Amino acid sequence: VPPVRLADVLAWIDAHVASLDPEIVPIFEAAGRILAEDLVADMDLPPFGRAAEDGFALRSAETIGASAYNPLPFRLAPAAGDLPANSAVCVTSGDTLPVGTDAVVRMDHAELTTEEMVTIIDPVVAGHGVEQAGCHCRRGCNLVVAGRRLSPADVAVLASAGFARLSVTRRPRVHCVFVAERVIECGRQLPSACVYDANGPMLQALLHRDDGLQVAQSHVARHQDAIAEALMTPGADAVLVAGGTGSGTTDCAAAAMAAVGEVAMHGVAIRPGQTTGIGRAGRLPAVLLPGKPADCLWGYELIAGPVIRRLGGRVSQLPFPSRTMTTARKIVSEIGTLEIHAVRCLDESTVEPMASFSEAGLMPAVRGDGFVLVPEPSEGYPHGATVSVYFHG
Amino acid sequence: VPPVRLADVLAWIDAHVASLDPEIVPIFEAAGRILAEDLVADMDLPPFGRAAEDGFALRSAETIGASAYNPLPFRLAPAAGDLPANSAVCVTSGDTLPVGTDAVVRMDHAELTTEEMVTIIDPVVAGHGVEQAGCHCRRGCNLVVAGRRLSPADVAVLASAGFARLSVTRRPRVHCVFVAERVIECGRQLPSACVYDANGPMLQALLHRDDGLQVAQSHVARHQDAIAEALMTPGADAVLVAGGTGSGTTDCAAAAMAAVGEVAMHGVAIRPGQTTGIGRAGRLPAVLLPGKPADCLWGYELIAGPVIRRLGGRVSQLPFPSRTMTTARKIVSEIGTLEIHAVRCLDESTVEPMASFSEAGLMPAVRGDGFVLVPEPSEGYPHGATVSVYFHG
Repeated sequence: VPPVRLADVLAWIDAHVASLDPEIVPIFEAAGRILAEDLVADMDLPPFGRAAEDGFALRSAETIGASAYNPLPFRLAPAAGDLPANSAVCVTSGDTLPVGTDAVVRMDHAELTTEEMVTIIDPVVAGHGVEQAGCHCRRGCNLVVAGRRLSPADVAVLASAGFARLSVTRRPRVHCVFVAERVIECGRQLPSACVYDANGPMLQALLHRDDGLQVAQSHVARHQDAIAEALMTPGADAVLVAGGTGSGTTDCAAAAMAAVGEVAMHGVAIRPGQTTGIGRAGRLPAVLLPGKPADCLWGYELIAGPVIRRLGGRVSQLPFPSRTMTTARKIVSEIGTLEIHAVRCLDESTVEPMASFSEAGLMPAVRGDGFVLVPEPSEGYPHGATVSVYFHG
Repeated sequence: VPPVRLADVLAWIDAHVASLDPEIVPIFEAAGRILAEDLVADMDLPPFGRAAEDGFALRSAETIGASAYNPLPFRLAPAAGDLPANSAVCVTSGDTLPVGTDAVVRMDHAELTTEEMVTIIDPVVAGHGVEQAGCHCRRGCNLVVAGRRLSPADVAVLASAGFARLSVTRRPRVHCVFVAERVIECGRQLPSACVYDANGPMLQALLHRDDGLQVAQSHVARHQDAIAEALMTPGADAVLVAGGTGSGTTDCAAAAMAAVGEVAMHGVAIRPGQTTGIGRAGRLPAVLLPGKPADCLWGYELIAGPVIRRLGGRVSQLPFPSRTMTTARKIVSEIGTLEIHAVRCLDESTVEPMASFSEAGLMPAVRGDGFVLVPEPSEGYPHGATVSVYFHG
């Protein structure tokens, strides 16, 4: 079977994976979550006219004619009660505009001549120094729309509109199944012919970054029945299997997935990550990731990550900022395969390719600054080409 | 006192705020943290020569002369024990290279003629299909350097080198003191002349984003002694005070900080955020943030954020990706003040300015896509100017 194109895998994900249901969280825990409903202000923001500055609230009409040659005195009055003519009330930014006043003169534009008198030398118009009710947002207007990842400012605006709890998309619960032999958890003694596990900590970190919750981890032998049983562990929204995806005689992850669900695609034209597969375990979306760490990383970034982010209501695109830069050396890629090449920045605008992932494992991801994707039809980029560089980190 | 320039505030932070001590965390919790020491491989990665592919391990010398016209048969043998002449061992990617073999022929480049025989039609050289010990990283080489924010790939490489626990910079514990009157926590009934609190949820979210731990929250009245007492609450690495920083008669946050430490600077040439201040409460770095939410946000982003990120061992720069874009309308700014202008993207390369924060509170941060900084000497940008746009959210 020839490998499928990444675009076809992503189309399958779009067609078969939907956002999870929402849950209610307190506003203090809502930042970074995906808002699940449009929220409309049910009050004016601010709710009442108030002083925009520290200063003196007064009647603007009474300042007409004020100048350095004609300083006008105002008597300080308390905020409550009827305001006598030619009076001013000392206000702090945010205070309700006192009844009878319609403008605020800033502290430094007035002179406190005695403890009871202030002198004004510039006339002001009605509304000067005042935030009118609803000037930030009128009752009935949209505050934040569904699908938005809530920023600190979003949360602040929603709090100021009185929302104490928000409906946000539930975080996907993910079960990771590790199919490996002679792979030892770091911290233990390393027997000969064994290696330390890289995929366990890596997938935990990737899921955490994408706001997934790793609810279970299973370590199973390279046997179809053991993998199939692990795939059906209840309590998850998605399953990731790492290892057992290749063409070796003990590579039975795909057979296990077929036995308990469906293998939609297995073998993708991406490098690293060619043996990645996707399908279902029971009714859950499931991704088969290669066991080799660099292949596991890119199988996650390009295929499992979009599944997790889509379940969580996020955009499925790569979660990295990108910038257009120039290659300082040529990048060679195989036609027919989307290749990921790690790059290092030489300066603000130039990158050079690093060792390939197949030669150097995960080290190019650790030592580089980012990566370039070379699409399937391309055989690479010449020296001096313009490329999009994605910055992980 | 004229306001100080932001650059002078940042220089004070660089001179007076240092990284916190490290702490030890399990590798499974290390992603996103700042590594506190250089880590060197104390083993080769991979630790032994191994098959890079699923296939057949054999002696490369025995493949000389193989071709489609001269297929060479190899007898399958077990991995253990002496390997007879013209034998091959079936291996899975990652298996130790069997003793006596020096190359691996990929599964699809060989033909399994019987269950015991495989036929080779292409000669291979020694090392073909093999990952040599140390080919990713030699024992003694740098893996990850101190100060790096650990990515999922970093964590994976360190795990594969056997590091089960890592020394990372401790997260700053932050005490937030809210100086406000007639500010009500959202979810309660809103009395007249009161507003819902925006700064509490916002600072919580900002600190979380910058990997700070909010260890305490105090709500105090606008009285110097109450603020001073709150400033000295033990158990924090830094204190943020929100509110009471202006020129009003009850604005006593700076006086309170002076009473228990030092006000290094108060009044910064930034807008929003002019009344931000910085100094010490006892020996701790402390930032005075304006109470108005938009001013509080930018006082945090430009001044408190750098303090928190520097304590946490991070770079103090703005934590937002930026891109060079073109303005679709002019942006007007006051000379002498660094102004923050919210912008909205019109297309891939063009932005337009939105309402100012002073007119519309936090709404421009919620409705915009990012922001532009107009430095102190500039009176803004004409239509069609090239600007750096920072993308929050």
